[in-house]
Amino acid sequence: MFVLTSKSQDGQDLSVSTGNWVTTTSFAPPLVAVGVKADSSSHTRIIETGVFAVNVIGKEQVNRAFNFLKSHDPEGTSIGGESFGPGPETGCALLVNTPSWWERKVVGQVAHGDHTLFVGEVLEAGLRN
Amino acid sequence: MFVLTSKSQDGQDLSVSTGNWVTTTSFAPPLVAVGVKADSSSHTRIIETGVFAVNVIGKEQVNRAFNFLKSHDPEGTSIGGESFGPGPETGCALLVNTPSWWERKVVGQVAHGDHTLFVGEVLEAGLRN
Repeated sequence: MFVLTSKSQDGQDLSVSTGNWVTTTSFAPPLVAVGVKADSSSHTRIIETGVFAVNVIGKEQVNRAFNFLKSHDPEGTSIGGESFGPGPETGCALLVNTPSWWERKVVGQVAHGDHTLFVGEVLEAGLRN
Repeated sequence: MFVLTSKSQDGQDLSVSTGNWVTTTSFAPPLVAVGVKADSSSHTRIIETGVFAVNVIGKEQVNRAFNFLKSHDPEGTSIGGESFGPGPETGCALLVNTPSWWERKVVGQVAHGDHTLFVGEVLEAGLRN
């Protein structure tokens, strides 16, 4: 599972949602595809900005992911009870208590059915202690 | 893991390969995306025909999947030591000793990097005893 984050072009609005449809799609360049609900705010923001971040959830952190099945508004540097900071390349929220993250730019997409598959190339990635 | 099968337009040539890059991408219609190596014969045949089959591998059958990391030519109704029959909708090979299979038609693709992501809609599916 993962927590997907995105933002409006002006950076004023953040979207945070939970996903589990993800797969690697290329080694060179390293690409990942994620499925995003077509009528979601995350979808609108990814289309608008062409970028998103994936916060990878640890096995013991599943409740953290479930928390973002409902939407939350940020309060300062916290959203849904999770502290976050802005990604260095995209400004999308990076949750500070998850083991790793990627920032991605969209290089391809398939919009068919109730979710769009966005294929993203790595802009930046990090591991946390 | 899964075993991906495809065929030439005239049905004379079959490709069987192993994959583990797969994700659901939509509930309605039910879509699945698979990553296929861009320089593989499977890739050529899926582009040519627009269809493929996915043979789902059981947990105890991983060696069956590894077997198709190298290519095999069919001998009658067997390939790489696995019995198969033609899929009812596509003619792609369905391995008879795997728990389930889907036949898919391609409804979208992203060709970027060393693999192409093919998004497929279900044509037919089956469970085996």
